[in-house]
Amino acid sequence: MEEDSNQEALETLKRFVAIKSISMDPSYREDGKKAAAFLTEFLKGLGADVNEFSAGTDEIGGETVERHPILLARLGNDPEKKTVGFYAHYDVQPAEKSDGWKTDPFVLTEEKGNLFGRGAADDKGPLTAFLMAVKQLHDTNSLPVNLQIVIEGGEEVGSTGFKEFLEDKKTELEKASVFIVSDGYWIDKENPNIEYGLKGNVYFGIEIKGPNMDLHSGDHGGAVNEPMVDLVSVLHSLYDQKTQKVLVPGFYEDVLVSEKNKAQIAEVYFSVEQYKHELGVSKLQADTKDKVLLKRWWLPTLTIHGIEGGFSGPGAKTVIPGTVTGKVSMRTVPNQDPKKIEQAVTEYVTQQFNALESGNRIKVHLMKHSNWWYNDPDNPFTTAAITAIEKSFKKKPFLVGVGGSINAVGDIDTVLKTPLLLVPIGQSDDGAHSNQEKIGKHNFLTGITLFKELLKELA
Amino acid sequence: MEEDSNQEALETLKRFVAIKSISMDPSYREDGKKAAAFLTEFLKGLGADVNEFSAGTDEIGGETVERHPILLARLGNDPEKKTVGFYAHYDVQPAEKSDGWKTDPFVLTEEKGNLFGRGAADDKGPLTAFLMAVKQLHDTNSLPVNLQIVIEGGEEVGSTGFKEFLEDKKTELEKASVFIVSDGYWIDKENPNIEYGLKGNVYFGIEIKGPNMDLHSGDHGGAVNEPMVDLVSVLHSLYDQKTQKVLVPGFYEDVLVSEKNKAQIAEVYFSVEQYKHELGVSKLQADTKDKVLLKRWWLPTLTIHGIEGGFSGPGAKTVIPGTVTGKVSMRTVPNQDPKKIEQAVTEYVTQQFNALESGNRIKVHLMKHSNWWYNDPDNPFTTAAITAIEKSFKKKPFLVGVGGSINAVGDIDTVLKTPLLLVPIGQSDDGAHSNQEKIGKHNFLTGITLFKELLKELA
Repeated sequence: MEEDSNQEALETLKRFVAIKSISMDPSYREDGKKAAAFLTEFLKGLGADVNEFSAGTDEIGGETVERHPILLARLGNDPEKKTVGFYAHYDVQPAEKSDGWKTDPFVLTEEKGNLFGRGAADDKGPLTAFLMAVKQLHDTNSLPVNLQIVIEGGEEVGSTGFKEFLEDKKTELEKASVFIVSDGYWIDKENPNIEYGLKGNVYFGIEIKGPNMDLHSGDHGGAVNEPMVDLVSVLHSLYDQKTQKVLVPGFYEDVLVSEKNKAQIAEVYFSVEQYKHELGVSKLQADTKDKVLLKRWWLPTLTIHGIEGGFSGPGAKTVIPGTVTGKVSMRTVPNQDPKKIEQAVTEYVTQQFNALESGNRIKVHLMKHSNWWYNDPDNPFTTAAITAIEKSFKKKPFLVGVGGSINAVGDIDTVLKTPLLLVPIGQSDDGAHSNQEKIGKHNFLTGITLFKELLKELA
Repeated sequence: MEEDSNQEALETLKRFVAIKSISMDPSYREDGKKAAAFLTEFLKGLGADVNEFSAGTDEIGGETVERHPILLARLGNDPEKKTVGFYAHYDVQPAEKSDGWKTDPFVLTEEKGNLFGRGAADDKGPLTAFLMAVKQLHDTNSLPVNLQIVIEGGEEVGSTGFKEFLEDKKTELEKASVFIVSDGYWIDKENPNIEYGLKGNVYFGIEIKGPNMDLHSGDHGGAVNEPMVDLVSVLHSLYDQKTQKVLVPGFYEDVLVSEKNKAQIAEVYFSVEQYKHELGVSKLQADTKDKVLLKRWWLPTLTIHGIEGGFSGPGAKTVIPGTVTGKVSMRTVPNQDPKKIEQAVTEYVTQQFNALESGNRIKVHLMKHSNWWYNDPDNPFTTAAITAIEKSFKKKPFLVGVGGSINAVGDIDTVLKTPLLLVPIGQSDDGAHSNQEKIGKHNFLTGITLFKELLKELA
């Protein structure tokens, strides 16, 4: 019986992975529709009421193209039962065999206990595990809750249109007392996690415009005030390496790290040496587990991603770039106010630039923005998840933070104000977005058990 | 008679421009051979002894490909006459109609007194003017000097192999008492120039290597010491915008600006307002003609060209680049020692980087290097050129410096130690390397007269 249902789960995932539902490349829009149809068929097979909603349109080469649709499935309507929400996404990152995949990325391939394929980890594997859990409960007539299942197709392109969908279906979706999300990874290969915080992100483009074209550095060097020199100066003024601090006034004002965060870090197993080894670095910004994890999970950070418009090719081109744009982002944490940060950064950067008196022009613009999310783990939903994980994976989960952002989590939190439960089933080496993306077969199958137990506990 | 010879000159240039002797793209190697054959035929027609020499080979996609050949033509062997050298190049920059050319770049097109076409200015126009001058003198049996004509096909790709050629033919080439070069532009549209100095260039790649791959800025921000942050810091430490000074110790030690340089600048007509207008900037590093030209011609400069390996595309990618390489170059002037500068920059940059204690690794490497060249204008060759220009263009030339570098000039100076005479016939708006490259018809035809007069004066 278990043998059969495992086989069914693997075959379902295989069929799902075979659909090239890439959201980043508009030439795969039909595949997005196919993935939505695949899920609709599956859910209707369980008697769910499934509807497709538009996530809006994109203008591509003068044409208006529909984004991958959003699915909303409702299963069960028993007023005696609690209603539980579930969020996942069916879109995937691009993948080509020629990128360096050892197997066809769209053919789920089992090898040494792993299931390789694009989306195996992010997010088709966890989504399929959840759907199989629902099916198994449904087939044995033991589904203990009503379900509101939301599956979008644009997570990999920033979940554009998702917030509007939530606002539109708010009354309906608010019926769920909690939303389960499984779109992430454990911090190692062995120990299950519950994620109780995600950082936010404010991403800036700092454009500095000088001469109206690129110039020859021989002919005009020494005469013009070079935008690259201005930009390097402005970027340098943002961060102090000695103190490891962002120098924007007020940046740390609202940062709140609780004793609870620190206590939970203390309980986590994490090897700094192992982490350094994996990254190939001899030194980190901190040298103890507590400090490293505090920085990765609960403290704001700054990254300089690169410069657009400068000379970025190989070789030795003698150009003075006319316009350059520095890309900088800051990961935000509780209780930083992203609006306040945006304003403070813009003001500070402009001030630093003006002090250079170069005569060039600056434009600071927010390119991307997502809110941090935090869920105090002392709540019955988290307790239910801990129990479900102990029953399925036979281990006590670590309570962890995440440095990355999931737009949909921020959106659900902001629009619905429903608590979220982030229960990843992937391992740290799953390689989402990379070649050889995989999910452990054991994790995938045990994930099904986890979700069954979780729905029972939440009931 | 003049009508006829002008027609012949225009037709010769037209045929020459039609040959796509692009050196940057190996698929045009056959066209390089065609251009060399075209010149050989022309020069043999005058009774010259013409030989083709290899400039070495390139490895392209596993294949060994011959570079465009170097031509050496000897005309006249009269022991009573002086021997004059001439250098030019027959290769051109790439050009496609689709780049934005209004006319076919390989069809010389006359419009409003200008001759448009790739190479019209750089360097087929001046080269053709010189060859026509030689032909006209030869046809009237009045060539007053012996000639050593050197024409290479790799100037646009750094003149690789040219120095070796000079070393190889040194005994032969040393017979010339002066080398004429015409590969540049006047500083405006009206006034002829003689160039008596070129800056050198030391071009560095500063590579900083951190983690062994690009990382997600959410997952690893705050933990790793980011190579981009190190690089921004190191780049910032190179230059002070307030004082407009390169901060590398000893950088200015050997800089020699003579009173003569300043006096000659005073005689030049140059409008700072016009220059600002052309570049589209509201402010320069200096606000007077004297200071602007001093910086452009006789003071060393620093340019930050860009960063390789960082995120340089459009959009908002959340990456921590694992390895980044900053591209920085310094234009050098008399009497800076490029070896000393190289060492000083390498030491200083390494020191600045080490002080960051980031645990990352640095590699500073010289990517490109050319020597400055200087020829004190108080010499009989320059006097001859002034007279020839006055006789042809009917104007007294400005004596100017050039911020750019011509590798071949440095090579001739270093290997042969022969004085060089840089006599451009192009105008400031000729747009070499750009779309709509052109040479003024008047300048091209008067250039022929100039070269005839110059050869007479040098005799």
